[in-house]
Amino acid sequence: MMRALDLAEAVESGDLSPAGIVELVAEAIAAQAVDIRAFTHLDLDSARLRAARMKPEGGLFGLPVGLKDIIDTASMPTEYGSPIYHRHRPKADAPVAVMVEDAGGILLGKTVTTEFAFLNPPVTLNPHDVARTPGGSSSGSAAGVAAGLMPLALGTQTGGSVIRPASFCGVAAIKPSYRLLPMTGVKPFAPLLDTLGVFGARVVDIAFGLAAISGRDLRVDGQDFGTPTFGVTRLAFAGAAEPEAEAALEAAIRAIEAAGGKVVEIDLPPVFAEAQLAHRIINNYEGALSLAWEHRHCRDRLSPILLAMLDEGHAIPVADYDAARSKANRARKTMRDVFAPIDALLTYSAPGMAPSTETTGDPRFNKLVTLLGLPAVNVPFYRSGEGNMPVGVQVVGRFGDDHRTLAAAAFVEAAVAKAS
Amino acid sequence: MMRALDLAEAVESGDLSPAGIVELVAEAIAAQAVDIRAFTHLDLDSARLRAARMKPEGGLFGLPVGLKDIIDTASMPTEYGSPIYHRHRPKADAPVAVMVEDAGGILLGKTVTTEFAFLNPPVTLNPHDVARTPGGSSSGSAAGVAAGLMPLALGTQTGGSVIRPASFCGVAAIKPSYRLLPMTGVKPFAPLLDTLGVFGARVVDIAFGLAAISGRDLRVDGQDFGTPTFGVTRLAFAGAAEPEAEAALEAAIRAIEAAGGKVVEIDLPPVFAEAQLAHRIINNYEGALSLAWEHRHCRDRLSPILLAMLDEGHAIPVADYDAARSKANRARKTMRDVFAPIDALLTYSAPGMAPSTETTGDPRFNKLVTLLGLPAVNVPFYRSGEGNMPVGVQVVGRFGDDHRTLAAAAFVEAAVAKAS
Repeated sequence: MMRALDLAEAVESGDLSPAGIVELVAEAIAAQAVDIRAFTHLDLDSARLRAARMKPEGGLFGLPVGLKDIIDTASMPTEYGSPIYHRHRPKADAPVAVMVEDAGGILLGKTVTTEFAFLNPPVTLNPHDVARTPGGSSSGSAAGVAAGLMPLALGTQTGGSVIRPASFCGVAAIKPSYRLLPMTGVKPFAPLLDTLGVFGARVVDIAFGLAAISGRDLRVDGQDFGTPTFGVTRLAFAGAAEPEAEAALEAAIRAIEAAGGKVVEIDLPPVFAEAQLAHRIINNYEGALSLAWEHRHCRDRLSPILLAMLDEGHAIPVADYDAARSKANRARKTMRDVFAPIDALLTYSAPGMAPSTETTGDPRFNKLVTLLGLPAVNVPFYRSGEGNMPVGVQVVGRFGDDHRTLAAAAFVEAAVAKAS
Repeated sequence: MMRALDLAEAVESGDLSPAGIVELVAEAIAAQAVDIRAFTHLDLDSARLRAARMKPEGGLFGLPVGLKDIIDTASMPTEYGSPIYHRHRPKADAPVAVMVEDAGGILLGKTVTTEFAFLNPPVTLNPHDVARTPGGSSSGSAAGVAAGLMPLALGTQTGGSVIRPASFCGVAAIKPSYRLLPMTGVKPFAPLLDTLGVFGARVVDIAFGLAAISGRDLRVDGQDFGTPTFGVTRLAFAGAAEPEAEAALEAAIRAIEAAGGKVVEIDLPPVFAEAQLAHRIINNYEGALSLAWEHRHCRDRLSPILLAMLDEGHAIPVADYDAARSKANRARKTMRDVFAPIDALLTYSAPGMAPSTETTGDPRFNKLVTLLGLPAVNVPFYRSGEGNMPVGVQVVGRFGDDHRTLAAAAFVEAAVAKAS
């Protein structure tokens, strides 16, 4: 994989230029044995032009960044994964795309999203096993980084669309606190849940990328964060995990303890089980609202799985939606108490390794975290026996404390590396 | 003015048809002595077609509704008040436009907005005095309802863009609780503040309209709400009001007390003065982000007042923005205590009557309420001596309790009518 932090340091020291990095990207894309179909639109010529003209400055030092294709770009088509938006070209770039360029990044292309970032399986392949899904909905961003085609990519999460594909593809990713990155110009699905996130090779790379793009002090490279205390939860209300995910979680716990970190078991009160149910109501009600025009006017160009969800969402009484929002608010307050004795929660990123391409996998271990707006990081590391597939663990932090969350995740990553 | 509730009742009883109402609208628009320029796009033919074909059902019974021209429509141009978007035609309707149609409303046309809903004066005239501003940024919606051109119109408020023009034009309006209506497909300015609202002739009319569009139980016609307790605040941190606004507030207090309502003085703690300052930081920082593409690529087509704000917003350190959000959160919590002994706050809607057309007036008595996401209603009634100009008062309620807020506003409206 391309390590964003290492590339940036090579640019800073003069060993590499932005133009050189774009050529590395071009070569990696051309050299794929099997095209994993990470991109809906690749704009290498524009990337070369910008690389040749730019001074390698700003936090991103000329690094190429892939954008999930629900992020509006004026210079590239933006199709939201739907034939309804075939060849759609927005008038303006989304603010987050401008932020990438302001930070000295290069817009490399648009990465495959599932249809409107919902559950219909995409064309993208998992680079570890083409018979398995890369996960969704940020499929191209996760698979493209995993395949070494680009150092950084942006995705979004409404249920589990950042953490789950990162786990399936074996890359690091952060879904930051709700609203850390601006959602303007990103096709909405459920605005109370939709959150932009960042994919990269390692935790230090995504911290570097998110820091540069958001302008916040979030880097965790070269820092000593002591010995954090983790609260382990298996989110029992979401059902049991598969053996591979449980093995990954247990391996992480052993590695944390061996590295001097503390691990305590956390029992989540019933309000969180209710909140998990509230996620579905908010997701489907808001999804049906956000896509109301498409639902009324373009039914024949929606996938069956999305159409069924929209029909269900459209039928939800508004009182149920308002009640679900109240439940979410109560759970947010209770979660503050849960964090009092710990630095971060540790749990599954996904139920197991990537399933077959018939689905994009199950976001059930991600929904609560998304609903509560908490920062979450996938730490990639565990490769389950069969087929050597990656399985990550999820580190979840306090709302608004993305730095401590990334630091805790970096601690886990380092601990696991030492243990293996 | 056209009273939405009366028109709906006439349709229900068979005295009027949707087609008949569209003709009333067409006649009113044609009969203007001076064109107040409420619309950027008027689609009477489509309105007639829909009226002829529809069954007068749904909560809105075939009533025409004007949409502020920052609300996306696929069937009508949407220019956001900016030459950058000249003849722009979005691909999809905003969900709120679909909700209007789902509720049995008729999309009448697009109403004038200031440039991107900021402060640059618009072409719309105040129907009470064409030498004075109708207020902004929902200028066409407020002025159009005031001139009797339509029974209902939608606007948005980021600072004071619903309540202020309603006060200046002498119409009722509600800026509901933050997120009661979905902002998807509405051009964002400051997403943490932007809120859709409804204009109509009286409080009962806007409650009727908001209830129908949002699907919530918010009507206040024909109901007895007892004798609410009002907390009067003059929002001293925002500066002094002009004599006309003070006279309106005092007249409202006398009328409430005469009608059996209770009025107590409320002293707001200093956290709200800080929050008022936080509004400016959030507004300008998020404004510069939301319009980042336009700011970078179309500087020469931005007004000087907007460009100055964008330059200022772009220079705000992100740490200041994050601190402003924290201050807003603290103020939201403190506000819950303020409401404990009262049903609603009573304060100024605007500093005075509408000023000249050189500005759109000052939103300083609206910013805090917008920042806290509280429902706010302009009760139109007071006409100051000079020129017989309207001056409203503002009724502000608990977050999420739009019904009680509307009921309190209806109480004020009835009390004042009785007193005059």
